[in-house]
Amino acid sequence: MKFNRRNVYISPKARLGTNVQIGDNTTIYDNVVVGDNSIICNDSVIGEPLAAYYAEAGYENPPTAIGEGALIRSHCLLYAGCSIGPGFSSGHRVTIRECTEIGANCAVGTLCDIQGHVRIGNHTKLHSSVHISQTCCVGSYVFMFPFSVMTNDPVPPCNEVKGGQIGDFSVVGVHAVLLPGIRVGQNCLIGANSVVRRSLPDFSLATGDPAKVVMDIREYVVMGVGKPYPWMNRFKRGMPWEEIGFDAWIAANPAA
Amino acid sequence: MKFNRRNVYISPKARLGTNVQIGDNTTIYDNVVVGDNSIICNDSVIGEPLAAYYAEAGYENPPTAIGEGALIRSHCLLYAGCSIGPGFSSGHRVTIRECTEIGANCAVGTLCDIQGHVRIGNHTKLHSSVHISQTCCVGSYVFMFPFSVMTNDPVPPCNEVKGGQIGDFSVVGVHAVLLPGIRVGQNCLIGANSVVRRSLPDFSLATGDPAKVVMDIREYVVMGVGKPYPWMNRFKRGMPWEEIGFDAWIAANPAA
Amino acid sequence: MKFNRRNVYISPKARLGTNVQIGDNTTIYDNVVVGDNSIICNDSVIGEPLAAYYAEAGYENPPTAIGEGALIRSHCLLYAGCSIGPGFSSGHRVTIRECTEIGANCAVGTLCDIQGHVRIGNHTKLHSSVHISQTCCVGSYVFMFPFSVMTNDPVPPCNEVKGGQIGDFSVVGVHAVLLPGIRVGQNCLIGANSVVRRSLPDFSLATGDPAKVVMDIREYVVMGVGKPYPWMNRFKRGMPWEEIGFDAWIAANPAA
Repeated sequence: MKFNRRNVYISPKARLGTNVQIGDNTTIYDNVVVGDNSIICNDSVIGEPLAAYYAEAGYENPPTAIGEGALIRSHCLLYAGCSIGPGFSSGHRVTIRECTEIGANCAVGTLCDIQGHVRIGNHTKLHSSVHISQTCCVGSYVFMFPFSVMTNDPVPPCNEVKGGQIGDFSVVGVHAVLLPGIRVGQNCLIGANSVVRRSLPDFSLATGDPAKVVMDIREYVVMGVGKPYPWMNRFKRGMPWEEIGFDAWIAANPAA
Repeated sequence: MKFNRRNVYISPKARLGTNVQIGDNTTIYDNVVVGDNSIICNDSVIGEPLAAYYAEAGYENPPTAIGEGALIRSHCLLYAGCSIGPGFSSGHRVTIRECTEIGANCAVGTLCDIQGHVRIGNHTKLHSSVHISQTCCVGSYVFMFPFSVMTNDPVPPCNEVKGGQIGDFSVVGVHAVLLPGIRVGQNCLIGANSVVRRSLPDFSLATGDPAKVVMDIREYVVMGVGKPYPWMNRFKRGMPWEEIGFDAWIAANPAA
Repeated sequence: MKFNRRNVYISPKARLGTNVQIGDNTTIYDNVVVGDNSIICNDSVIGEPLAAYYAEAGYENPPTAIGEGALIRSHCLLYAGCSIGPGFSSGHRVTIRECTEIGANCAVGTLCDIQGHVRIGNHTKLHSSVHISQTCCVGSYVFMFPFSVMTNDPVPPCNEVKGGQIGDFSVVGVHAVLLPGIRVGQNCLIGANSVVRRSLPDFSLATGDPAKVVMDIREYVVMGVGKPYPWMNRFKRGMPWEEIGFDAWIAANPAA
């Protein structure tokens, strides 16, 4: 139903792999490379030119790379200069601005707004409406929930932005805010609606505004569940340890 | 101005009622049924195929039903498998995922994101940018304000989601969050920016994080207004009691 | 790359200035006037008809004016009856409803949702996903950060809305909420995630829920920065005092 080549424009300077499907009303600009077996749904724009395009006569679109097996749902907008690893999937109406690097097997939900010059690791999942400011870094195996925000302006308005960082395996709750330049460690859990005003060490369970470390996440007991964190022995759908379990996988992949 | 049949695609398997208008650049996929006198504006997608479409050769789009008299504004996306009652209206850029059931005379505002498998009653109004997670239930005559969220993941990330519920006649303030599995009773008012961490009985006025019941809503006095809640004697625009008043209407419709 | 006249519709009743570029898949409705040297990117809708269009046979689109030098990025939706001054720029997927007046040199970020009948001064910058309700007024040189909200319904649901106001040079932090009818003075700073429940005098630094004035902004000291507010001597990119500094500029423009 979705792939009829109606009102599709693909630049002759774009390069599509084998078995790539492009939805109706989608535009692919210069110097985009799409990996094999990818699906880019309808009403999307890939390789959106940077601001310089409007000003410079000799503008050349920087390269945009989407790894193999991507599923980009409808109405997404991906700027030129981005690089996305294999196995990517998106919701709808995602905006990813220029020079963003996303690793392998990530998912970015509906209405996410990634402001550009952002780095994201592997297997990280952004739920809907996550906002990430320029120069922020998100690790691998991170989960961010709706309306969570990483900011970057320490004394607004200011001239020098200062993005924050989120370490591997951390989980950021709905409506949580990370103030500029904050580093959230690995294996942290940030509660819903928290405002993280200081950096947090690994294994922090932090909640509130200002977010305070209420305990070591490894001590956190949920009634009927036990000690659910770190979560990697409990959740494995789509994770590289899906088949063998986290402990066996990490033993075999100590650098991960 | 808006209905010129430019770049419109309507599946031959879709069925449009009499006097239905379809805006330019809109796509209607297989097995969509649109009720009489409905307007579906430009740049919309109705009956979006489910994820299985990308994987299964024999995929058949599940039926999508939109009741009569709908006004779906531009840039909306409605998945297949949804059922929407008569008198529906939407803002722009609404996303409603699969298997969502919405009753009669509901309104869903600009940028709302309904994640699928959601049930909503009748005469419920979602303002802009409301996010509702899978398996949540919203009653009838409910108002939800911008950036309010119903979540569903009790121990994120987890394998089994647990949607919450909001009872009839309740009002959820801007930026309020309902944690997973919470039941907000009928006739409640949840203050702006509250985080509801426990279920609330009927007639709760609850605010804060964690949201606490500060009083019975029937005791709440607003200077210059008196006791404004329950609100049904005070607000009737578009409500079924618009002509006769709530008391007469409820007496005549005790099951409502 | 972006301006190929593919699937563009421009009403014969619209008037485009000299050197105006219109992106592919964009629609310009009746009675829109676009100033010289403007760029309206792809997949946008300008002059969207009001609700009356669906009901009235003799509907005439009210005039829509965009000043010279605009850069409206892709997927924006601007209703008829709006007036936007020169030097405007937008992010993507912005929605601006009817009868909104925006002054000169403003910027409105990706996913902003301006509900109509809103007034905004000059040189004001809305970052992404700012929501402004009907009848609100935002001054000049104001900064609003992602997911900040101006509400207008004092006793929801109610019949009479009451928009708030933000004074010149004020800064509203990420996720901050202004309750209905609130006036934030000039030169204020509202902290992240605050809920402003009462009007605030000029020079307030206010944080929390309810937002309290924690100090006069002129006393606020940031380590390594000194006293950063008022910010006008510190930040001047794109401001009218960029060349000569704020003090010289304000002396020459006392009415500003």
